[in-house]
Amino acid sequence: MARSVTGPDEVVLDHGSGAKLSHELVSLIVDTLGDVYIGEMEDSAMLSVPVGRIAMTTDSFVVDPPFFGNGDIGKIAVCGTVNDLAVVGARPLYLTLGMILETGLPISRLLRVVASIREAALEAGVQIVCGDTKVVRKGEVDQIYLNTAGIGVFEREPLRMRDVRPGDRVILSGSIGNHTVHLLSIREGLGFEQRVLSDCAPLNGLLEELLAATAAGAVRSVRDVTRGGLAAVLHEYAQASGLTIRVEQDRLPIQFETVMATDMLGINAIHAANEGCLCLFVAPEAEQEVLAALRSHRYGGDAVAIGEVTETAEPVVLMRDGDGRDSVIEELQGSELPRLC
Amino acid sequence: MARSVTGPDEVVLDHGSGAKLSHELVSLIVDTLGDVYIGEMEDSAMLSVPVGRIAMTTDSFVVDPPFFGNGDIGKIAVCGTVNDLAVVGARPLYLTLGMILETGLPISRLLRVVASIREAALEAGVQIVCGDTKVVRKGEVDQIYLNTAGIGVFEREPLRMRDVRPGDRVILSGSIGNHTVHLLSIREGLGFEQRVLSDCAPLNGLLEELLAATAAGAVRSVRDVTRGGLAAVLHEYAQASGLTIRVEQDRLPIQFETVMATDMLGINAIHAANEGCLCLFVAPEAEQEVLAALRSHRYGGDAVAIGEVTETAEPVVLMRDGDGRDSVIEELQGSELPRLC
Repeated sequence: MARSVTGPDEVVLDHGSGAKLSHELVSLIVDTLGDVYIGEMEDSAMLSVPVGRIAMTTDSFVVDPPFFGNGDIGKIAVCGTVNDLAVVGARPLYLTLGMILETGLPISRLLRVVASIREAALEAGVQIVCGDTKVVRKGEVDQIYLNTAGIGVFEREPLRMRDVRPGDRVILSGSIGNHTVHLLSIREGLGFEQRVLSDCAPLNGLLEELLAATAAGAVRSVRDVTRGGLAAVLHEYAQASGLTIRVEQDRLPIQFETVMATDMLGINAIHAANEGCLCLFVAPEAEQEVLAALRSHRYGGDAVAIGEVTETAEPVVLMRDGDGRDSVIEELQGSELPRLC
Repeated sequence: MARSVTGPDEVVLDHGSGAKLSHELVSLIVDTLGDVYIGEMEDSAMLSVPVGRIAMTTDSFVVDPPFFGNGDIGKIAVCGTVNDLAVVGARPLYLTLGMILETGLPISRLLRVVASIREAALEAGVQIVCGDTKVVRKGEVDQIYLNTAGIGVFEREPLRMRDVRPGDRVILSGSIGNHTVHLLSIREGLGFEQRVLSDCAPLNGLLEELLAATAAGAVRSVRDVTRGGLAAVLHEYAQASGLTIRVEQDRLPIQFETVMATDMLGINAIHAANEGCLCLFVAPEAEQEVLAALRSHRYGGDAVAIGEVTETAEPVVLMRDGDGRDSVIEELQGSELPRLC
């Protein structure tokens, strides 16, 4: 259907009414998604799944600002859900797309977000199967919030946190802190955002290549490092496994400008949100193989082993400094850094 | 895990940080959901589904006010998605739950919503498999918005709009307009809300009994009558099928107080959103059987046949008045009634 040249150029309340203007808005969105969208006019999409075990996840997205240097809320919304499916070892297949729009949002801005969704979905190889668009009055939302839910299929054994054992190595697929520094730099006018870009990316391709290249069980478990940063992931593993995780300060991959920016902002990169970084727990004998596989992929070039899992009386997360001294990383209550994803 | 007696009694930004306070909030939510929640600590839930075809849908919920006379946004969020799965003929199984919360929202209010979600999920027989909680600053959301996505399995042939044919009868499972009148009455202080309650309900049980009691193919297609009201559904059918839908004014099931309220509000009940009303297209020979099956269920007591499908040169939606005169129901641009679901 051709784009409406006579329709409003801003989102209006009636775009969410369920009547004619709703259909016009949905048509614009569906046209922009192109062949990434496989939905129909029915109240639910009807899909085929080839195998009996599936993964399912959801995330809502409230990132501020919605448009940043090298991405936008649309890209984050696809990558976040794709990555949460991939890290449990599933192949992401289908995404849903819920949108909450503010009256007055320029239609062109909305369609930029939708174009980013299409682009990210194409790269990840997933399809959008259904959606929903709500419109609220000015001031009842901040421009645009999104939600994606996704399902993926298990074509190999799922990866589980409980499979982590003493001696396992902790590996990061890329540097940490960049996404947070990029957004805060824009918000606070710090001027770092050209040099420190968000790491937002769909990582299912990286994981698929890694799992295909390694023996089953070599990679025990993987997590997407998002809100709460690396530290939050390590604490979750310590609690889930009952084991101690020790990482080495000097091995943490942090871009130089990110070190400077986090100092300036008074935050620690290990607590900073990322959007394209994996934390992997691997069998010690597979460490080199895993690093080689990650580093041969465009999103894994900076992969590095940062620590290991040990067994102690009480599970804690430890940071080993350059002199070999361990100190406990306490779990933060929070970080007072809102709306990073 | 016991409720934290020392934690904040209002939602604070750090409840969305991904660190300790996030985990505490999630624990409260998971405790309140009880056995309705089957998620784990992994980034995605791992589920079993029968191989083959599944239905998938999503909706976001921005209902204003979030708490009303006989329900709240939590109940709406479960019923909306359950009904969208049920109407295509699927058995709803699993729901995701995304929440966007405003700083300052009392935790007790949040947990009331979660308790409603549990109650509705129990009635519908679905489980919550994963979720997400985001917190934004004051003024960046209106208290609480929700998103649910859901999947269901097809244990019989899917119901499709394209299967509707000339001669089919149009049936409503209950009266129309009540949900809208109930909410607007509260918002505008009209005083109708005690006598006109929201019809919000999970209708998968009603549909399951109906489909089990009728021959395959007797029920051609079903839609959930939500935003845009009955008129929007009829227009979607006319467009999808290329056929004319004619309904009779005198047969429309509208509660007396709803007639009065819609007159007072200057709205037409056929354009008013519902949250617990089905529009069914059935084979003419099955009309009585379908009505009997619906009327024997607690949610179908007011079921009535309101019209039929015919073939004309151009597909239109017609209203036949008490004197047998037909007039075209034009599709509205919208209704300027925001945030009804």
